[in-house]
Amino acid sequence: MSQRITGVLAPVVTPFDADLAPDPGRLVGHCRWLLANGVGLALFGTNSEANSLGVGERMDLLERVATSGVDPARMMPGTGTCALPDTVRLTAHAVKLGCAGVLMLPPFYYKGVSDEGLYRYFAEVIERVGDSRLRVYLYHIPPVSQIPVSLPLIERLLRAYPDAIAGVKDSSGDWANTKALLERFAPQGFDVFAGSESFLLANLRHGGRGCISATANVNPAAIHALCAKWQAADADAMQKDLDAIRSTFQKFPMIPALKQAVAHWSADPEWARVRPPLVELTSPQSATLLADLEGQGFSMPGLRTRK
Amino acid sequence: MSQRITGVLAPVVTPFDADLAPDPGRLVGHCRWLLANGVGLALFGTNSEANSLGVGERMDLLERVATSGVDPARMMPGTGTCALPDTVRLTAHAVKLGCAGVLMLPPFYYKGVSDEGLYRYFAEVIERVGDSRLRVYLYHIPPVSQIPVSLPLIERLLRAYPDAIAGVKDSSGDWANTKALLERFAPQGFDVFAGSESFLLANLRHGGRGCISATANVNPAAIHALCAKWQAADADAMQKDLDAIRSTFQKFPMIPALKQAVAHWSADPEWARVRPPLVELTSPQSATLLADLEGQGFSMPGLRTRK
Repeated sequence: MSQRITGVLAPVVTPFDADLAPDPGRLVGHCRWLLANGVGLALFGTNSEANSLGVGERMDLLERVATSGVDPARMMPGTGTCALPDTVRLTAHAVKLGCAGVLMLPPFYYKGVSDEGLYRYFAEVIERVGDSRLRVYLYHIPPVSQIPVSLPLIERLLRAYPDAIAGVKDSSGDWANTKALLERFAPQGFDVFAGSESFLLANLRHGGRGCISATANVNPAAIHALCAKWQAADADAMQKDLDAIRSTFQKFPMIPALKQAVAHWSADPEWARVRPPLVELTSPQSATLLADLEGQGFSMPGLRTRK
Repeated sequence: MSQRITGVLAPVVTPFDADLAPDPGRLVGHCRWLLANGVGLALFGTNSEANSLGVGERMDLLERVATSGVDPARMMPGTGTCALPDTVRLTAHAVKLGCAGVLMLPPFYYKGVSDEGLYRYFAEVIERVGDSRLRVYLYHIPPVSQIPVSLPLIERLLRAYPDAIAGVKDSSGDWANTKALLERFAPQGFDVFAGSESFLLANLRHGGRGCISATANVNPAAIHALCAKWQAADADAMQKDLDAIRSTFQKFPMIPALKQAVAHWSADPEWARVRPPLVELTSPQSATLLADLEGQGFSMPGLRTRK
């Protein structure tokens, strides 16, 4: 078994052109900048607008990134959809391209589904992909998906598929849940990623492996630095600095705010575009965001993602 | 402009074979039985497990039904997905096949989206499909989608696209909302369908056009009879009988319960199968459901959907 992926990953924001089509050139550029700043690529996460992309669009983009010289060992694309065959197709494709793992949402249209139904779903995906290289990171994000990935479900999946079930991204925002995951499953080699850098230090101190965070798109070097030096004396101060930047972004709708920051620091207004049902920040919102960030000395050095 | 579709429609349950693949033969059989009992075909609704199907699967199934001799003027397939290009593709395909209309979910992954974002989404779909035959029925089902289709949004869409925006299915379960839709929009030719037969009589009495209901899969003739004779003296008694059957199904998870009834009265156990994350009824649940129904003299006469 190859080395597991760890550290800080960004759910890479997806650029769209004037026709709202995904823009692979700009995407590859942003991926390179993230990697150069120590951050891995959780392409097709919630903050990537992945669920606004079709299956074919996702496969095309992943291939473009994978064939651009980016190391697939640094990639953990999202592959979970509402429909079993789509999830199988995306997952098998990511494994075939050599990705380190996949981040898998539960099917999220039908609400109130049972753990038995979710178990059958994940088990069926793993069986159908049928590849010993598959590493699944379960995606627990109840505020958005409305479908929790419970501890008993994880326990059952781990028992049945100890190699394929590699870890979890906990975006519940509930540290008690992350802590319970760490205590119960980390000792058996199950990798817990916090869903934001707010919990990065706490997660690492309790045996977690890193974080997968929206704001790693814009503040990668500083988040990576804390992950690398979490045992240093000034770790708590570093955490506090990360929290300040994150809280500035959180005053706005996150995805358009991230894209606005990328647009500004790459001097490339095309980056601000989002796909409906999302909407861009208004001009006053953008001005406030950028002024707030500049007031904190924030910038995105070296960013140049234009095609 | 051709005659609008009205009356009772069933979100047709989707049969799966032992490999969990959709079974077009059984589906066509069930469609024929529904039509023979006066009920139209809202294929790919919530109760069709449509959101557990891939885009290609939905297009294949729709073609199979449309080329089997079923009149497309009796079809209102669901075409709303999370992703703009998928929704456009499914919608254009349904229009090309001559379907009377499409039932369109809002994009449902991202929560708390604005009416502005939803307006842009629906407008973009209508523009991209670009076909004067398109008739969109907006699908308001907040308990599942978590994304309401608000009255101000409908008003704005109707103003911009008075021909394409044809109506709504209100599955809120909130009669006050249905009534508000009827009062505000029905006078301008906007067709309001109740989301279940529980509101059929009230909806018709206030100017609505019918209902699109899960239980129309199993109790089509009686629901159709009320819709046809809603001005008759015994309409309230008919409504009461419909409610009794519906409430029996509602004691169980709806989709597996519907399929269990079809399996039983067609003597075809294959019909009971569901796709994960759903699970079939347990044997005791099935026994209770069928005993309850038989105790009420319920049956599904003429059902024979085997391939």
